[in-house]
Amino acid sequence: MDGPLTTRKAATRDLRALFDPNTVAIVGASATIGKWGNWLARNALRGKDHRRIFLVNRTSAEILGEPVYPTLADVPETPELVVITIGSAGFEQAVEDALAAGARAIVGITAALGELGGAPLETQRRLAGRVREAGAVLVGPNCLGVADTATGLNLAFGDFTTPGPLAIVSQSGNLALELVRVSARRGLGISRFVSLGNQADLDATEMIDSLTHHEPTRVIAAYVEDFGDGREFVRAALRARSAGKPVVLLTVGSSRSAARAARSHTGALVSASVAVDAACHAGGILRAATAQEVVDLALGLLLPKLPRGRRVGVVGDGGGHVALAADLLSGQGLELPALSQPLAERIARTLPPNAATANPVDLAGGGEQDFFNYSNAVKALLDCDEVDSVVLTGYFGGYSEDDPQLARIERDVARAMAAAVEESNRPLIVQSIYPDAPTLDPLRAAHVPIYDDIQSAARVLARLVGHSSHEPSGVPDLGPVKAGAPVVPGYFATRRLLESAGLAFPEAREVTDSAAARRAAAAIGYPVALKALGSEHKSDRGGVRLGVASEAELDEALADMSSRLHPPSFSIERVAPTGGGVELLVGVRRDHSFGPILVVGAGGLYAELAGDVAVALAPVTEDEAAALIRSLRIAPRLLGGRGSTPLDVGSASRAAVALANLAVSRPDIAEVEINPLLVTPKGAIALDARIVSA
Amino acid sequence: MDGPLTTRKAATRDLRALFDPNTVAIVGASATIGKWGNWLARNALRGKDHRRIFLVNRTSAEILGEPVYPTLADVPETPELVVITIGSAGFEQAVEDALAAGARAIVGITAALGELGGAPLETQRRLAGRVREAGAVLVGPNCLGVADTATGLNLAFGDFTTPGPLAIVSQSGNLALELVRVSARRGLGISRFVSLGNQADLDATEMIDSLTHHEPTRVIAAYVEDFGDGREFVRAALRARSAGKPVVLLTVGSSRSAARAARSHTGALVSASVAVDAACHAGGILRAATAQEVVDLALGLLLPKLPRGRRVGVVGDGGGHVALAADLLSGQGLELPALSQPLAERIARTLPPNAATANPVDLAGGGEQDFFNYSNAVKALLDCDEVDSVVLTGYFGGYSEDDPQLARIERDVARAMAAAVEESNRPLIVQSIYPDAPTLDPLRAAHVPIYDDIQSAARVLARLVGHSSHEPSGVPDLGPVKAGAPVVPGYFATRRLLESAGLAFPEAREVTDSAAARRAAAAIGYPVALKALGSEHKSDRGGVRLGVASEAELDEALADMSSRLHPPSFSIERVAPTGGGVELLVGVRRDHSFGPILVVGAGGLYAELAGDVAVALAPVTEDEAAALIRSLRIAPRLLGGRGSTPLDVGSASRAAVALANLAVSRPDIAEVEINPLLVTPKGAIALDARIVSA
Repeated sequence: MDGPLTTRKAATRDLRALFDPNTVAIVGASATIGKWGNWLARNALRGKDHRRIFLVNRTSAEILGEPVYPTLADVPETPELVVITIGSAGFEQAVEDALAAGARAIVGITAALGELGGAPLETQRRLAGRVREAGAVLVGPNCLGVADTATGLNLAFGDFTTPGPLAIVSQSGNLALELVRVSARRGLGISRFVSLGNQADLDATEMIDSLTHHEPTRVIAAYVEDFGDGREFVRAALRARSAGKPVVLLTVGSSRSAARAARSHTGALVSASVAVDAACHAGGILRAATAQEVVDLALGLLLPKLPRGRRVGVVGDGGGHVALAADLLSGQGLELPALSQPLAERIARTLPPNAATANPVDLAGGGEQDFFNYSNAVKALLDCDEVDSVVLTGYFGGYSEDDPQLARIERDVARAMAAAVEESNRPLIVQSIYPDAPTLDPLRAAHVPIYDDIQSAARVLARLVGHSSHEPSGVPDLGPVKAGAPVVPGYFATRRLLESAGLAFPEAREVTDSAAARRAAAAIGYPVALKALGSEHKSDRGGVRLGVASEAELDEALADMSSRLHPPSFSIERVAPTGGGVELLVGVRRDHSFGPILVVGAGGLYAELAGDVAVALAPVTEDEAAALIRSLRIAPRLLGGRGSTPLDVGSASRAAVALANLAVSRPDIAEVEINPLLVTPKGAIALDARIVSA
Repeated sequence: MDGPLTTRKAATRDLRALFDPNTVAIVGASATIGKWGNWLARNALRGKDHRRIFLVNRTSAEILGEPVYPTLADVPETPELVVITIGSAGFEQAVEDALAAGARAIVGITAALGELGGAPLETQRRLAGRVREAGAVLVGPNCLGVADTATGLNLAFGDFTTPGPLAIVSQSGNLALELVRVSARRGLGISRFVSLGNQADLDATEMIDSLTHHEPTRVIAAYVEDFGDGREFVRAALRARSAGKPVVLLTVGSSRSAARAARSHTGALVSASVAVDAACHAGGILRAATAQEVVDLALGLLLPKLPRGRRVGVVGDGGGHVALAADLLSGQGLELPALSQPLAERIARTLPPNAATANPVDLAGGGEQDFFNYSNAVKALLDCDEVDSVVLTGYFGGYSEDDPQLARIERDVARAMAAAVEESNRPLIVQSIYPDAPTLDPLRAAHVPIYDDIQSAARVLARLVGHSSHEPSGVPDLGPVKAGAPVVPGYFATRRLLESAGLAFPEAREVTDSAAARRAAAAIGYPVALKALGSEHKSDRGGVRLGVASEAELDEALADMSSRLHPPSFSIERVAPTGGGVELLVGVRRDHSFGPILVVGAGGLYAELAGDVAVALAPVTEDEAAALIRSLRIAPRLLGGRGSTPLDVGSASRAAVALANLAVSRPDIAEVEINPLLVTPKGAIALDARIVSA
């Protein structure tokens, strides 16, 4: 197999020349305001104290008061880093010139290369090869640039100059601009930024690997469209996570029109959403839906202590705010336990008689009576063993906004809360109507995230609970590919292949006429099931009849199906004992980037309706398969809730393992699915199956 | 029946004295900064040009440079509006004094009244009665005040002074502060504000009715915990909607802990979430989950033209942004149709060769080449018949931020878009990384909503499509209550009651011993179903056996269930022909505020799992019931998709109508549920049922 799934060794090239070069040349620097070459020159020159900047332009004599060199060859020093921002026609030559001048890193801003497929894509590949041969690294082309706040490097369009713990790795320049803008609004600074563009050479995987060793980076925000070898991407994310730098991922492609756009954008093939989910699960990657959510999650991940359970204590001054918080937190699967009487009474002691202290805690005007009632209630919850995290919601932060004379006391209360956070093993998360209030600075300094929207706070908290309690499953090895006969289409061929892989089906015989059908039914024993073959949606079309109890009924059903559906053949099957069983769906789909993905879900009639699925990178162990099944919403039905008989989850798990192993070893299988897999108290039996060839 | 469901006539009291008084007295005015009496006095005095303000305080001689009167009786003019902001002990007397002084409106800021139930609640009721007798109106107590930007009235804590089209009606003061703060950030001004507090007299229903005739108000934002007579609330919302003033509702109580908080807050009983959903459906009310979402929706509702269908055209400069928009819009159930070739080519004409123009439209750098490419693409989509709305996403608004010299052209492009919007029958919605950019002012002036978050934009657009295409069903009359014998518990009594209401059950006989069971089975004919009675979760506990085919099997099953479950009796039933049928759940729950609520959903094993339900205020017509069923995700299974036989939705609808009618006429039924209702090609039959008495 050649392609993105070919295993690639994690490249650990030295990127010093990219992020901390001693010399930089900007090819295409411009004096014209509004041009990229002007932006880049201006931003680069702001780093003059750190390094020497050389502007290159064939026609200008001076730009921004700096001398200009007509070509790279004229630059008096070896440019460690060369930024190319000229028309696409000259790009290839400019890369060659940069290598000839001794560049160790090249940033290709130039766009419109590789967007159209064909020759430009070839050009990119060839150029990337040339760059690697020369021991250099190429960023882009079609990118926004790079920045490093620790080294004072800003070779990008946009303001990536405020230092902080967030690294931004993005295939889209404009989404990077949105990420940095939203971060700035929330007071979150940047460690490094790289706009990957078409990823001709440097890609998201290598960049994340590099950030794993980058001290100032604490969280990595990645926008990726083309994951290349997706499993290597996941391994890099795992390494980063182990180094204490979790990856928050934004990607696209869950809609067909998005794929249309992404294809046209960078020539990338977008991985389907479900495969990304499996990858995130395996790599402990937090997936976000928008730039805002990326920043929301990053702020939460920077908490010094993450929540170790689902129990939340809520504090606010106002019944509306705390009730709303309770609703939204519960809606995210978090719990608000009623506080013990001693604790509730202790909190109540300094509050008005109408305060609620059972959780949520409503100060009921007590916040205005004595502002330290806020910090006292927060501290009481942070210090108790009855909750795992604390949420402060509502007006706090606003007293100083409405009356500047209250700024001092509000800040003192914030300081008291920050001190309580530092002494506690539990995190505090704040939602405030006034999230930007300077009086909240002590909380920000203690890495307490402050949201303007309680829904965002609730979502982040739930994600953090999942993040801290879920140990990523890691990336399973694909193992050797099995040589085998090509997949034969058809129901019985599929059954045989799956049976040989270890899956159980009810006894069945293929027949084409009434006499053979009668013989088969007699041999199996009435009642039997009758299926008309040759259609994928047999049961929808009335091509399945269960409980055929007699020869007469069999004849009637055969005649009916023959006249309506004209099937090439029929299957006569033993009726599975459905009573008390639960139908699952088990399938494997091969993803271009992430390889075979195992899907387990509620099956049968409700498979698509319920949307109750769990996914994993295949292959899986039996324990992992069982964990997937137990994570389904339908799980209580399988595990024996309400006094019902527990079903054979072990058999179902083994069936999933077998199916995954088959798909992993046979790259010619694009999709394989058992639906339903009937799970009974004693075993799991496949009632229908299909295979799609690659 | 006495209680909130007693029909109340829509009160249409004159609220002029509340929102445009000629004279105002503030009882409890204070010179101490940080006290409510100080805030209110300061805010009130800002309206001195509009009316005469009298400060009342027993101990101060002068406050804020104004004379102070020791009691209301000392005030030289009749105070049309009296604001009371003193301790709760003196509140009752202050109300009496206000009425004695001739007040037409009273605003009770004073809190801690009625929060504890019992006597204070009685006090409130008595006071409200006294106020009504005197022909006056009382706001609160326990509220933040009132404001009217057209009349220059601000008798509230907080900044409710920027005029605009949004009316805020809130039971929670602090959530009102959040609403006004978020509105201000988005450039949305306020028409009127009223903090309802405990709603002792003036409530949300009356306030909405009053706003229906308030010219400056175009959208009503309501935060309500206690709906009182919920159906009257819905009727008021319908009247407001008909007057072009839709209601956006924020409420709480979907979690148990929220209910705990809300109870302690205003002594209100919070209506369960599902009943609120039914109410919103009936009243064309848009329900929001947070203050942010209220404002998001309000901005959308102010669009001069609402979308008339689900088709969206997306424009942006950058593949990442447009792909993300496509994903999130599709995720909201909207469609991005591929544009026709002529239109796509027309848009492509002035764009770079790598631009995508199939929808989403990615200018691919064309925005920077010529900024009017933005407005041209937007206008082309606004003018075409291929989409119902247009979304602009990404960087636009940022050019001027990054380079002030580009402000003029960016504003010109915004102006061109605004002109295109005004000429078009379709709405434009904008997401911008720079939502506050002044260059976007022409769009704001054309009532184009601008969001900072593409997910918010997508959600609002989907809600607007639903709002403009969904004609609210209105509030059905409850009709006369039927006198009848009290509900008898038990399976067979329930069956008989429901059968008499018109529902069909399979033939069944109740038996207590083996001999009777054999006789019953023989009479019905094998195979039969056997149910052990006396437990609500029969099937979970192995108390249901289907397809009992012989006397021997019957004996064995009876012995097994008897030994395990010790049921008081058994039911022997005809086996329903399940093949090809679909199981629904049909139920009615009586809500304290909104009365009987019909619930229709996917039933059987998956009822709770799938969460696939539709709700309505009962009773319903057969058409309405059918519409509810057709709105389920499971609907394609019933309607005959993929060549399957259509099921008898008519019978299922009639069953829902019958169940709703029964529950409506019998207030002693708190809950009644059929699950499953088996819908077959020929009829709908109830396979199990339960009733809970009120």
